[in-house]
Amino acid sequence: MSKTNPGNFFEDFQLGREIVHATPRTLTTGDVALYTALTGGRFALASSDEFARALGFPAAPVDDLLAFHVVFGKTVPDVSLNAVANLGYADGRFGAPVYPGDTLRTVSTVIGLKENSNRQTGVVYVRSTGTNQRGEMVVEYVRWVMVRKRDKDSPAPAEVVPDLPRAVSADRLVAPPFESWDATLAGSPHLWDDYQPGERIDHVDGMTIEEAEHAMATRLYQNTAKVHFNQHTEKEGRFGRRLIYGGHIISLARALSFNGLGSAVKLAAINGGRHVAPTFAGDTIYAWSEVLERMEIPGRADVGGLRLRTVALKDEPAGGFAFKDERGEHHPAVVLDFDYTVLMPRRAKTHG
Amino acid sequence: MSKTNPGNFFEDFQLGREIVHATPRTLTTGDVALYTALTGGRFALASSDEFARALGFPAAPVDDLLAFHVVFGKTVPDVSLNAVANLGYADGRFGAPVYPGDTLRTVSTVIGLKENSNRQTGVVYVRSTGTNQRGEMVVEYVRWVMVRKRDKDSPAPAEVVPDLPRAVSADRLVAPPFESWDATLAGSPHLWDDYQPGERIDHVDGMTIEEAEHAMATRLYQNTAKVHFNQHTEKEGRFGRRLIYGGHIISLARALSFNGLGSAVKLAAINGGRHVAPTFAGDTIYAWSEVLERMEIPGRADVGGLRLRTVALKDEPAGGFAFKDERGEHHPAVVLDFDYTVLMPRRAKTHG
Amino acid sequence: MSKTNPGNFFEDFQLGREIVHATPRTLTTGDVALYTALTGGRFALASSDEFARALGFPAAPVDDLLAFHVVFGKTVPDVSLNAVANLGYADGRFGAPVYPGDTLRTVSTVIGLKENSNRQTGVVYVRSTGTNQRGEMVVEYVRWVMVRKRDKDSPAPAEVVPDLPRAVSADRLVAPPFESWDATLAGSPHLWDDYQPGERIDHVDGMTIEEAEHAMATRLYQNTAKVHFNQHTEKEGRFGRRLIYGGHIISLARALSFNGLGSAVKLAAINGGRHVAPTFAGDTIYAWSEVLERMEIPGRADVGGLRLRTVALKDEPAGGFAFKDERGEHHPAVVLDFDYTVLMPRRAKTHG
Repeated sequence: MSKTNPGNFFEDFQLGREIVHATPRTLTTGDVALYTALTGGRFALASSDEFARALGFPAAPVDDLLAFHVVFGKTVPDVSLNAVANLGYADGRFGAPVYPGDTLRTVSTVIGLKENSNRQTGVVYVRSTGTNQRGEMVVEYVRWVMVRKRDKDSPAPAEVVPDLPRAVSADRLVAPPFESWDATLAGSPHLWDDYQPGERIDHVDGMTIEEAEHAMATRLYQNTAKVHFNQHTEKEGRFGRRLIYGGHIISLARALSFNGLGSAVKLAAINGGRHVAPTFAGDTIYAWSEVLERMEIPGRADVGGLRLRTVALKDEPAGGFAFKDERGEHHPAVVLDFDYTVLMPRRAKTHG
Repeated sequence: MSKTNPGNFFEDFQLGREIVHATPRTLTTGDVALYTALTGGRFALASSDEFARALGFPAAPVDDLLAFHVVFGKTVPDVSLNAVANLGYADGRFGAPVYPGDTLRTVSTVIGLKENSNRQTGVVYVRSTGTNQRGEMVVEYVRWVMVRKRDKDSPAPAEVVPDLPRAVSADRLVAPPFESWDATLAGSPHLWDDYQPGERIDHVDGMTIEEAEHAMATRLYQNTAKVHFNQHTEKEGRFGRRLIYGGHIISLARALSFNGLGSAVKLAAINGGRHVAPTFAGDTIYAWSEVLERMEIPGRADVGGLRLRTVALKDEPAGGFAFKDERGEHHPAVVLDFDYTVLMPRRAKTHG
Repeated sequence: MSKTNPGNFFEDFQLGREIVHATPRTLTTGDVALYTALTGGRFALASSDEFARALGFPAAPVDDLLAFHVVFGKTVPDVSLNAVANLGYADGRFGAPVYPGDTLRTVSTVIGLKENSNRQTGVVYVRSTGTNQRGEMVVEYVRWVMVRKRDKDSPAPAEVVPDLPRAVSADRLVAPPFESWDATLAGSPHLWDDYQPGERIDHVDGMTIEEAEHAMATRLYQNTAKVHFNQHTEKEGRFGRRLIYGGHIISLARALSFNGLGSAVKLAAINGGRHVAPTFAGDTIYAWSEVLERMEIPGRADVGGLRLRTVALKDEPAGGFAFKDERGEHHPAVVLDFDYTVLMPRRAKTHG
């Protein structure tokens, strides 16, 4: 019997099957430092214990996307080792903040299946839940991937496509306290009240990616997808080189968004996301955001949700807000179309 | 109103203006590990809690230059986003040692202004002070930069050029205790008493820099200067590629200086510094030092100050001590001319 | 007197001489995060405090090879600065687990000497012992290197070649407790009982190495061997470029071996090792392993030793198990031939 992991094929996913993923992971300040070095993040909450305590946190939580990538990474050997494509994300929520010393693990449940008409592949929908050592949800999300069948002739399962929300509703957002906000230290005078739906923000800066950087990030998350690491096989592959993990682009876009969204110190939801085009070492990533919606969080006057679309571009400054043409086709520079909800402090009513 | 930071122009700096910089930063053992991995530092004090405790410290402090870079990085978005050139440093002092867990912030005060005769730029002098969560000074320094004017026709401010010391005097050096020195573990038998003014030391080794390395270091310090990160714009720029943050060269030169200055476990002052020429990925950095002065610290028989000039060269071994020609022009290989003061243990009188 | 370290020459090694190496080093979670980012390790014990506690450890120990590299790195300035070649390792044992916060130091003793017939070099055998702050052995090993003589005409020492075991015997393995094993979280259903001597495992995956990655790893270990860092001199050298530290290849092969040996969460011994061919940035490393021996550990029913040969290949998938030809010559793709012993949980007798 072979002792290596062949990964799951489409036939191995049955509706309702629960997969406990391997390699629990204790996050540390070492991971935080690497995340800063690899992305350039400057949001004050994840950067300073003192700032975090002033807000009401016991210490600086790790960046939400660092936690997401670690939770996601664990699913790769079981869910996407034989994947042809990562098709999308939806209904992602951030729960308990993650602190250095917390140990994360991930469990996924198959919630949808749909064989493709070519009979060689099928789409698998899983809901993955990352929990800490106390069993509290830290991040959960749905993702769907196209997976190879082991055998073209194996019978197709009953088709089940889950009904997914377009966005996580305000009442489902987990919002920690926002006491004692210091806009100067946060690096932006603009609060929740200052952003208007439809407003677009050019995040100005560009960040060039090196092979060592994306490979280190992806290994840090213990994400084992071969396409990110093996130049020997990829040089004969479709692109001739290693693909960058799409999550690294999300992280870079988020880090760039500090310039214009400095008060958006925490993520609350991932409503949807699409890696529109592949990225490679040498690409320079720019980003712009559009405010999609300003969300009141029930019972909370201190903090609100801001639903954003952040678009990442490669080798194209974001000031032109490149996105889609009249036929709905993405501009060739677009690499990421990310719909998510951030938390921002609100102006006290007496100033409103 | 644009929500992105346009940076300050020359007109925005008024004499006496105080700027509280954004993004407080908690330093951790993660930062320390990255600093070691990126520079190769081997000084025992920052490397070992046990060595530090034997000297009288509660734990290993972080490398002084790591603290400096973090304090410096915060000033970039406010001070040098529109800078044409970083002209110099002076009167830098290291105060309270920084330990993992400490949170640093930076405040700068404008102490000098001088419009240039072309009326398009001016020189701004700021004193920047980094403090920990108890408000103790950890590092302070003066730097002057040439900054663009927003409008050539705006009136020139009154010219004020601060009077800066050539070197920080011995009575202003902050020297922690140096009990129980172990020369073997420190890696050098040479103490303060053994160095003579005029003595030159070839640090022998060379270190080649990769793009990923300097970019990671500079992001770790949350330094946002665009020239270090954006190959897409820099390829059309003056040099055709990304410039390395000058502070990374200071750190490499300091790390190389272990070979010959292993007992110089702590920095006390930055007297002056000039980035003589730009450096780029692929350059190999060498360094040599000259002892400028042996400084007695008032009331201290255990430790002394050694004022050094460390010169970094690119692609030129340091054994030739390349520096300046007869007309005072720097040798083309010189990239850094750094004047600073280190602390070194002194021989006990009975052995002297 | 020159203040830089010239290293030791063959004449400087006398039988029985003890060398206390410089720069004690406190290992931290920062080192652990970097090690993960640079190697991609996924073994559960070093990854999760919770998993470690369930086994009976107080917290997740650092990866055994990280500790080994740090202990080894300290010996370079004293043992191998003037080395022509690193010839081999033997009799390596891992003792007390290393935890973040532990401070390691290394002492070496000269246990063998043999001048070569050309009189220009000699072989030095040293036993190096790494200890923690409580003086407990964390790793010890014998290594022999070919070192230059300072003077061809200096007299040859009496020849002493130590008698070294082919493998560390089972009674000398240090095995911590293995309570409460969770095979799902460990990522492999295969336990000690399931591996058979002679069995070969293709670890499938490949990992491409960048200059920045191996240089960061090697600096992290404070290993100062010039060949890894200085492209300016190496471009004129034998290979025209920087050599990768052989230990980095051991670490990559070990990380790759997770796929097939996921339950091998701890190293117990290094029986022998040979860096068969040099590696360079751009190489893609693959690995396969052969089970050499299944070792019962006296008095232990919970855990056993598995002696393995892991072979690393460059730019050659491991499924062909490339090794040696009929004349005993290594296949040109082989870069590492590593003989070591891992610890694995055993099946409870009632299931056996």
